[in-house]
Amino acid sequence: MTAKAASAQTIGVFGLGSMGFGIASSILAGGFRVFGFDPNPDAVSNLIDSGGESGDPVSLAPGLDVAVIVVVNSSQTEDVLFGSDGIAPQLKSGSTVIACATVAPRFARDMEKRCNELGIHYLDAPISGGSIKAAAGQLSVMASGAEAAFDGCGPVLDAMAETVFRLGDSAGAGSAMKVVNQLLAGVHIAAAAEAITFGITQGIEPEDCVAVIAQCAGTSWMFENRGPHIAQGDYSPHSAVDIWLKDLGIVLDIARGEKFSAPLTAAALQQFIAASGSGLGREDDAAVAKVYARNAGITLPGVE
Amino acid sequence: MTAKAASAQTIGVFGLGSMGFGIASSILAGGFRVFGFDPNPDAVSNLIDSGGESGDPVSLAPGLDVAVIVVVNSSQTEDVLFGSDGIAPQLKSGSTVIACATVAPRFARDMEKRCNELGIHYLDAPISGGSIKAAAGQLSVMASGAEAAFDGCGPVLDAMAETVFRLGDSAGAGSAMKVVNQLLAGVHIAAAAEAITFGITQGIEPEDCVAVIAQCAGTSWMFENRGPHIAQGDYSPHSAVDIWLKDLGIVLDIARGEKFSAPLTAAALQQFIAASGSGLGREDDAAVAKVYARNAGITLPGVE
Repeated sequence: MTAKAASAQTIGVFGLGSMGFGIASSILAGGFRVFGFDPNPDAVSNLIDSGGESGDPVSLAPGLDVAVIVVVNSSQTEDVLFGSDGIAPQLKSGSTVIACATVAPRFARDMEKRCNELGIHYLDAPISGGSIKAAAGQLSVMASGAEAAFDGCGPVLDAMAETVFRLGDSAGAGSAMKVVNQLLAGVHIAAAAEAITFGITQGIEPEDCVAVIAQCAGTSWMFENRGPHIAQGDYSPHSAVDIWLKDLGIVLDIARGEKFSAPLTAAALQQFIAASGSGLGREDDAAVAKVYARNAGITLPGVE
Repeated sequence: MTAKAASAQTIGVFGLGSMGFGIASSILAGGFRVFGFDPNPDAVSNLIDSGGESGDPVSLAPGLDVAVIVVVNSSQTEDVLFGSDGIAPQLKSGSTVIACATVAPRFARDMEKRCNELGIHYLDAPISGGSIKAAAGQLSVMASGAEAAFDGCGPVLDAMAETVFRLGDSAGAGSAMKVVNQLLAGVHIAAAAEAITFGITQGIEPEDCVAVIAQCAGTSWMFENRGPHIAQGDYSPHSAVDIWLKDLGIVLDIARGEKFSAPLTAAALQQFIAASGSGLGREDDAAVAKVYARNAGITLPGVE
């Protein structure tokens, strides 16, 4: 079956947090009819103000061509699809699920199997890029799935993403790559915090540290992105500390199962756990710097 | 005193390893007269083939306007300047030492003081960029020192470097920034190795891992630079494993002195120590991946 033209497709977006709302907005901007669903009524009404629609997911599901699931983790993903009010049994045959949460590859393969059994295509499609890129339709998508799954949602992917990596012909490969990305991203955030606070002990202003290192071999995407949060003392959450308890936890669960020793990931996770345990779980993940600073008796910019 | 024109200045380069040889070549290309010194006669004769000169450092030192010291560590730096055949007592008043090794800021301040007492300017000038950029005159230099030190060697710095960060008016600040850079760079190399080998457990080919992650938020300068070494199984040394035993050791020595807890640096150092301890100390630092692979029973590309 050929995908319908964009203007004729109806899309449901499940989860309207910072990423999901941006994705829904991008898909709207792509000319689709978009229904959005979220437990938070403010998010839903914001989407309606932007031209989206909403309603009861179970009764609307049969009208959807594509369901994009942008929730936090595997248990929420499973709940959207197969929970007591799950939509999978309601979705029409030939429709496509785009699953965006960071999950273990094994979970993605299980969801694919259960959706396929209902005649529904499943695209394992974790995303990278942050809320600003989500809103601009410029995400990176690490996708794997059957050709029919890609065919069923190509124009929607195009509306969401600047880059779609096509990593394999079944679910699991996309999630595997995303998990590797999260390993690095989480370690790099903690490393940025470690380096900037260490620099303070040596008389280096965080602002100067960020400006110089960004042009040297020590830089990383996360250093350049999160370093300014520390230098400016701005911990309003783009991506929260608690995300890393989940994502680095996924890495280490898989690693333990594979008997793979991952000492940097383990060290980074401990720093995020300390941040969350000291009440910073909902702050921006750059707030892991506060753990380093407190442990060393250092004052950070903008932090009392 | 104004610096002489480039063509009239005579430069000594002490240490002709991969970085020093490239720096000497860049300075030659800048039109200077260059004397090079190294215990390895092949390095010296290669420099002479490139248009450089050599001889006895103690007797040649009085003729130098600038002495660039590109040795491995603080003890070699001190030996070049103040050892039994040290050049500092021979250098003429008003000449400038450019000290490039990665050292503790306190050591740089001590060297500056001792040089100044002899009427010699001292520039604390650690470098970043690797041997290819060294040979192209495109290094980053993290420099601090008195205005007279900068004035005494401006054209030489310009020949060596694409970017000169001017970080303060006395020695120490340059070394401090370099140490922060090395913290990040060392952690990022180990993280790249951890991520790529972890990816292998999930069925991700290292080559694909490098290609995809380089375009995602998990990337780093080191991931993009060293990742291909792992993917191609090429461990011919650009920067050796043992460099990180030294440089992360400097970070952790300083950190302990400051009572600064640096768990990621500590974890990364342990992986480099395991690499060195298992006989990989002189291989490219990407060989830290072999520790991860061996510990997980994984086979890396190009490794038996």
